[in-house]
Amino acid sequence: MMTEKRLGRQTLKLSTPPSMISNTSIVGPKEGEGPLAQYFGQILTDDYFGEDSWEKAESKMLTEVVKNAIKASGMSNTNIDFMFAGDLLNQIVSSSFAARELQIPYIGLYGACSTMTESLCMGSLMIDGGYAEAVVCATSSHFSSAERQYRFPLEQGVQRPPFAQWTVTGAGAAVIARAGSGPYITYATIGKVLDFGIKDANNMGAAMAPAAVDTITAHLNETGRKPDYYDLIITGDLGNVGKAIILDMMQKEGFDITKVYNDCGSMIFDSEKQDTHAGGSGCGCAAVVLNGYIVSEMRKGNINKVLLIATGALLSPTTTWQGESIPSIAHAVAIENTIGVGV
Amino acid sequence: MMTEKRLGRQTLKLSTPPSMISNTSIVGPKEGEGPLAQYFGQILTDDYFGEDSWEKAESKMLTEVVKNAIKASGMSNTNIDFMFAGDLLNQIVSSSFAARELQIPYIGLYGACSTMTESLCMGSLMIDGGYAEAVVCATSSHFSSAERQYRFPLEQGVQRPPFAQWTVTGAGAAVIARAGSGPYITYATIGKVLDFGIKDANNMGAAMAPAAVDTITAHLNETGRKPDYYDLIITGDLGNVGKAIILDMMQKEGFDITKVYNDCGSMIFDSEKQDTHAGGSGCGCAAVVLNGYIVSEMRKGNINKVLLIATGALLSPTTTWQGESIPSIAHAVAIENTIGVGV
Repeated sequence: MMTEKRLGRQTLKLSTPPSMISNTSIVGPKEGEGPLAQYFGQILTDDYFGEDSWEKAESKMLTEVVKNAIKASGMSNTNIDFMFAGDLLNQIVSSSFAARELQIPYIGLYGACSTMTESLCMGSLMIDGGYAEAVVCATSSHFSSAERQYRFPLEQGVQRPPFAQWTVTGAGAAVIARAGSGPYITYATIGKVLDFGIKDANNMGAAMAPAAVDTITAHLNETGRKPDYYDLIITGDLGNVGKAIILDMMQKEGFDITKVYNDCGSMIFDSEKQDTHAGGSGCGCAAVVLNGYIVSEMRKGNINKVLLIATGALLSPTTTWQGESIPSIAHAVAIENTIGVGV
Repeated sequence: MMTEKRLGRQTLKLSTPPSMISNTSIVGPKEGEGPLAQYFGQILTDDYFGEDSWEKAESKMLTEVVKNAIKASGMSNTNIDFMFAGDLLNQIVSSSFAARELQIPYIGLYGACSTMTESLCMGSLMIDGGYAEAVVCATSSHFSSAERQYRFPLEQGVQRPPFAQWTVTGAGAAVIARAGSGPYITYATIGKVLDFGIKDANNMGAAMAPAAVDTITAHLNETGRKPDYYDLIITGDLGNVGKAIILDMMQKEGFDITKVYNDCGSMIFDSEKQDTHAGGSGCGCAAVVLNGYIVSEMRKGNINKVLLIATGALLSPTTTWQGESIPSIAHAVAIENTIGVGV
């Protein structure tokens, strides 16, 4: 059923678009040597962040980035009505342990690397629906904890194929609120789970591209917007392999997004110099590029209308071992400096 | 800030309470021999459910229980706007693989065993906020896949301590919609993450009890309701150990809930006859007791006002190995046969 708030099967319109009040990011040393270094709030010199395990370091990054976002918003923890967060670690422990310290009512999410936009979708809807004044949305990933969990322990020294991506060590957080001067979240497009039969846990870009195409197509069809409405249509972490696939697939859907398209995973590293093969990935990838680069450029007015589509591969090591292919999902948010400019 | 929809830090009031349209459950053979057997929609004779792994069996249970709920609602998949689901398996693969088959826009959640109420909270708010007409909320767990993942492979034959609980093999789903004749979801109370320092992954009841107490106390204080407003205040899976703790802790908070209190984990098994030690646990526990027993008794009019508090232990094997204690969360929904009867 279509209503004023519901434009089609997947796209929801925020009738009073919530505003991003503050955006913060923390990245690891390698990300801090990449092309977007100037945009990040904090660059760690040690990827253990003073902890004795990578998992604890990841949780500390998430906790700190949320604290920083709340501080930058001028509010305190008690003004933040809900925290929407998730991450790649089993049982999303980075997020849950952060929520334990922050004592903000907490909704744990799992959307793999789509978590940044999943959390922004749910957070925005809670504000627009009248259930919250301000929420914080956050996620993280860590190269070393992700490799250990999903692929091989680093100590094993397994060679990575050329289409493999490099999980971003980083965390990002956004405080969004009913009152504010933008950038505003104007639309949320919720993803469906797609699966094109890719079985290689190193080839995430190819596995996730169809989900991104499905969500972007739904968004454009349901809002009636053309690709060039946006200054930037940016996916989360398809990397260089997925980026090539998506342009081709979108063309087949009747949309040429070439001029405005980019991918956070392609932007965050200099793949040749930094030996990151197909580019960046992980929940933290879209999170730090959004809360670092994108929002910073929007606040300067260099870009004004962005469609961010974070993409998640919904595999587990167990499903891989049991011969399953990799289902994927992509959730999108439209972020705009001006409200009510229409299509 | 308090508004008409927001009664305090944690409790939200559904201004147009969504109605449960259909509720379905599937349980394993052991649950089918327990005291609530007559209430379950389907009892499996084989806990592999015709699949070649427990993980695939769990995902099939979740897929089938959602299909059954949609069928019983008289709707089709295309009428269901969103699916809110999560489970205990790493990367919530039972839910994600179900969403792949069902092709319903999907929000993946992780709240461990609190997922049934977490999904009902988010689903109800999406309907009440005007973003959906109908959603499906679902979760599952499987004894054998959970033991393998969280504790020891069953083949190892490790002896279980007397305070250990037995993960329920089961899945439950509820279709909730804007239009319907009840039972209605009238309030949602979102949990905070609590941690009282329990480190034993077998002693979940004790770990989760403080989170349940916190959420019940918030709910009663913020709504102004007294415990005896409810015919039943029921926690998800504290089991016999947690059940004893909670009555004592609630007394200290100034509330005597003894007369109306029960726990899904205590009800689902006959612990002595079925050798389940401290009772049932797992996402599936609250899911099948809600969608089997509770809703059935509500539809008969035998109980009319229920506060369901599903409780989740947010540990992972990695955090246990790294010496961390077990943080927990509890989300609550008030479910009532009549709307607008006030406090």
